[in-house]
Amino acid sequence: MTKSELFKQITQKQSYLCVGLDTDIHKIPPHLHREQDPIFAFNCQIIDATIDYCIAYKINTAFYESLGARGWESLEKTLAYIPSSIFTIADAKRGDIGNTSALYAKAFFENMNFDSITVAPYMGEDSVTPFLTYSNKWVILLALTSNKGSNDFQMLAVNSKVDEEYLFEKILKTSQSWANEEQMMYVVGATHPQLFQRIRKIVPQHFLLVPGYGAQGGDLQSISRLGMNKECGLLVNSSRGIIYASSEKDFAQKAQKNAQAIAEEMKKYLQEEI
Amino acid sequence: MTKSELFKQITQKQSYLCVGLDTDIHKIPPHLHREQDPIFAFNCQIIDATIDYCIAYKINTAFYESLGARGWESLEKTLAYIPSSIFTIADAKRGDIGNTSALYAKAFFENMNFDSITVAPYMGEDSVTPFLTYSNKWVILLALTSNKGSNDFQMLAVNSKVDEEYLFEKILKTSQSWANEEQMMYVVGATHPQLFQRIRKIVPQHFLLVPGYGAQGGDLQSISRLGMNKECGLLVNSSRGIIYASSEKDFAQKAQKNAQAIAEEMKKYLQEEI
Repeated sequence: MTKSELFKQITQKQSYLCVGLDTDIHKIPPHLHREQDPIFAFNCQIIDATIDYCIAYKINTAFYESLGARGWESLEKTLAYIPSSIFTIADAKRGDIGNTSALYAKAFFENMNFDSITVAPYMGEDSVTPFLTYSNKWVILLALTSNKGSNDFQMLAVNSKVDEEYLFEKILKTSQSWANEEQMMYVVGATHPQLFQRIRKIVPQHFLLVPGYGAQGGDLQSISRLGMNKECGLLVNSSRGIIYASSEKDFAQKAQKNAQAIAEEMKKYLQEEI
Repeated sequence: MTKSELFKQITQKQSYLCVGLDTDIHKIPPHLHREQDPIFAFNCQIIDATIDYCIAYKINTAFYESLGARGWESLEKTLAYIPSSIFTIADAKRGDIGNTSALYAKAFFENMNFDSITVAPYMGEDSVTPFLTYSNKWVILLALTSNKGSNDFQMLAVNSKVDEEYLFEKILKTSQSWANEEQMMYVVGATHPQLFQRIRKIVPQHFLLVPGYGAQGGDLQSISRLGMNKECGLLVNSSRGIIYASSEKDFAQKAQKNAQAIAEEMKKYLQEEI
């Protein structure tokens, strides 16, 4: 999917919500355990219920890998179930030496046809560029993550000619020579609203994938007002707050209700800012 | 496996060789494609041929993931085939927010019973500590990787009270408060021999997993003389140089010959240094 196609989806749906399919076998409603593939059954109902209110689905691979080969099958089936008009994110946080990253790219972009993958920046350029050889596929590079540990290294001041630059800012700058805003997005956690303006000075045109809204405590209004650009430029993710809105048979209805409420709030910010 | 058990294996076999099972379906000998699971068939023969000369096997997950659910099965079968006396490494370079890293830990330590996993440090403490809740299991944290991109961020000077400290040195220091040398190892690429003495000042007791020897150009003598400590403290990995020593039916014999030659050189360094 291209950047303009993504923006078109946002305009049509008046939403920049990404639903995180962090589907945990121990958290899904008990009645689904009678299904042949409970994870897939859960995901299908969540997708059907939320698809009108979101423009992306993010699948965190850890939840599927923790079930072995069977989980991997549920992941592949879930991805195949999502219509191609919806942007898909493999939240895999991969990254390895060049020939190995190329195999991860093959796994997620050829075998599975995800639109994008999250990539860890620590190993540098040649660990990221193999993902950039696919047209209309995206790298979403970890910049400033939503967790407490983001303070350990991402916020270190690095030596540079400019005054006080954080490691994640150096990564934002350096990585722009690897790909432009048509192929690269950045992960910026909702838990750091005070840094959104600084980030937008470095990457004014890029899309930001914003996790940490909801369960992790981020605030949608602040993120939207500080982070939005003329093409929206935001994909705000909610996982637990939507998919586990109920642990009963009405889980899909409750998920829909929560997704709809978020989309209505987003519509307001889109109308104010764009 | 504990540190003393690992050292015992090294002493018995007089080797600190780790064989990397980077098994690529496009590189294995053609006759194996007649097997039901060519990847597993290849790995079994490589393991049988090299087990007397190495003390660890490293399985890079990218090679298996690139084959989807079927590849995941080959990975699980390969791990189960390796005797428990041999140290096993999931070279997965994972790392995510706490509840998600816990699922990766479950995948690799409970479902699959690896002894260790490589973890990326960028997301900080709470992305690493879920892997440390398993007794006798190891985190192998990326510090200074073997690839060209290691110069992009790992070698940045970070602000600190001591003179000139690289980011990877800061990571070596900070992570020692998360676990000691009985549960944590570090990845240090063979392509940086000039930095081994600096690294040993920070982590004198830890094991280092050293990739980049062989195909990537590292030199065994320098690494061994500069990096070895009183309990060896080194696991030097070779992947392509061993497993693809021949692309014919004699691949296992040739792999054995190469592993044996490396082990003989290692025996010499062990006798000199310990």
